[in-house]
Amino acid sequence: MNAPYSNRQWFYVKRPTSRVGSEHYELRESEISGPLAANEVVVRARYISVDPYIRIQQHERNTYDVPHPLGIVQRSGVVGEVVESASPLFAKGDWVSAYSGWQLYARCHQSELTKLDPASAPVSTALGVLGMPGRIAWFGLMEAGRPRPGDTLVVSGAAGAVGSLVAQFGKKAGCKVVGIAGGPDKCRFLLDELKLDRAVDYREHKTHKDLTSTLIEATGGVDVYFDNVGGPITDAVIPLIKRRARIVICGAISQYDGGLDTPDMGPRFLQHMLFQRATIQGVLARDYINRMDEMVAQVAPWVKSGEIVFKETFVDGFEQLPAALNSLFEGGNIGKLLVRV
Amino acid sequence: MNAPYSNRQWFYVKRPTSRVGSEHYELRESEISGPLAANEVVVRARYISVDPYIRIQQHERNTYDVPHPLGIVQRSGVVGEVVESASPLFAKGDWVSAYSGWQLYARCHQSELTKLDPASAPVSTALGVLGMPGRIAWFGLMEAGRPRPGDTLVVSGAAGAVGSLVAQFGKKAGCKVVGIAGGPDKCRFLLDELKLDRAVDYREHKTHKDLTSTLIEATGGVDVYFDNVGGPITDAVIPLIKRRARIVICGAISQYDGGLDTPDMGPRFLQHMLFQRATIQGVLARDYINRMDEMVAQVAPWVKSGEIVFKETFVDGFEQLPAALNSLFEGGNIGKLLVRV
Repeated sequence: MNAPYSNRQWFYVKRPTSRVGSEHYELRESEISGPLAANEVVVRARYISVDPYIRIQQHERNTYDVPHPLGIVQRSGVVGEVVESASPLFAKGDWVSAYSGWQLYARCHQSELTKLDPASAPVSTALGVLGMPGRIAWFGLMEAGRPRPGDTLVVSGAAGAVGSLVAQFGKKAGCKVVGIAGGPDKCRFLLDELKLDRAVDYREHKTHKDLTSTLIEATGGVDVYFDNVGGPITDAVIPLIKRRARIVICGAISQYDGGLDTPDMGPRFLQHMLFQRATIQGVLARDYINRMDEMVAQVAPWVKSGEIVFKETFVDGFEQLPAALNSLFEGGNIGKLLVRV
Repeated sequence: MNAPYSNRQWFYVKRPTSRVGSEHYELRESEISGPLAANEVVVRARYISVDPYIRIQQHERNTYDVPHPLGIVQRSGVVGEVVESASPLFAKGDWVSAYSGWQLYARCHQSELTKLDPASAPVSTALGVLGMPGRIAWFGLMEAGRPRPGDTLVVSGAAGAVGSLVAQFGKKAGCKVVGIAGGPDKCRFLLDELKLDRAVDYREHKTHKDLTSTLIEATGGVDVYFDNVGGPITDAVIPLIKRRARIVICGAISQYDGGLDTPDMGPRFLQHMLFQRATIQGVLARDYINRMDEMVAQVAPWVKSGEIVFKETFVDGFEQLPAALNSLFEGGNIGKLLVRV
């Protein structure tokens, strides 16, 4: 190695029971040095991803994975630059994506890296529209949601990393798209930038009945519901489904703080599935990893041509990572939230 | 017409808000007489069906249908004998099934009748295993449940008209079948007559935790859940689903009394759909009417050979119809409940 590198790492050390914060992490400093193994690469992170699923994995019980172990660097997606390489596939200065977690520097085997082409799209999109969020937005909507021209698609968390893409893919599929989001800024984004048909600000509605009335008026009934949030918003949408509606469960961010261990109570709704012969399907991005190329082939041209808006919100500073993760649950960000380091 | 017939009819006159009983009906007597129209047939009912869906249609709001109108004869399936016929297709003495409702005699157009062959199966099976309950048991399990050999299938309401068939179809498909029912008689029926792998008596379990423990032990995880009941039993099953589980919502009998208008509260569970990438699908018998022949071709030979047990419970007396309908919600019957008139 040409130089020792001063590394900074966020270790995950304590399970949160409600909100996550810096008290659940330890910031450690160390040095990376010594000879590289064959095909080893050192990557300097530039964009580190914070995603809602990280909070799911912090629970003590199994969810779709075993719990994230304590005492190791917080796992996450990263985009960075190659600073050292003993691999024939990567050269110094190459941009790559990796799953190397919350650390400035990582020693990676070449097989863990995907090379990025900065000329074809901003490299940060590998963590957003051309990465995991884009993948589940695309396959979740197209394969589980099965949108048809003229369908009414409702998207919760519509200003978020996944929701904002789902909403636009729905427009491309010929749907009438109603986005649900919290606050006037997000709703303006849905209408002005994403060009959705309607935006519903759930924060303006204090009761289930109010939200229901607005949703009835805005949708006229729901053919496809792409759900990122769960909880009271989903309570209001499900009774509005139409015959053979498809409900896609991509996230339940309202429940991640505590509700996964001790479920919240909510109104029962399975009778609506019966009345409407509707379908609920849970989808996870990892199930489509082997079809990443297919998604990119479809979506990258739209990104390049500007037909798809991919909004990114950047937080600067490695030390901000725990706070940035928590901010996802406060609903502050529009589009994909990234920490620039 | 050769004779005037003394008809008795149960008119549906008042919407129940909780349990249904004779106060929601009026028993009226009248005479059927006069000339038959071309292709008209008079049918004398012998078996009248009471089914849980009848209670759904009594609600004031639309469910999968507009509400059952007040002031008309209660609709239901019937098996009876032809007593007069001006149709070339039916002769006096023929057995037929019809949707002629709670009345002793009905004037029917020939197109409303299906001829039954008493030599091939007891005619009452046209209201059970070879009728609507058999149809939704077969298609609901095979098409929405997609059982695979070795899967663990859990059936709620397993001693009922639909559940008892689903459980047996599941055994034929090579599943391990765990039936849930209320009371020792039903559980003995599940084990001794239906030969299920396990029977769980939910009434023996006073808490969610108790029922959960027993279900974990009995199932080891659930691949297919065929739900006829909803409510607390379903609350206990859903968290036990395995990867890519299929949940079939065929009924929610625990909710029909009042919960369809004002939903009960229950624990949220959509996160499990996400973790397990599972599917919930609501199914309704009417959606498979055009495939009735396909079901009968498959199931009738099993009925004839005795490979499928079809239990029937008979209540005698036309005047018993409202009470028989209500008894479905008290869980008294095993198999298909029929009123013999």
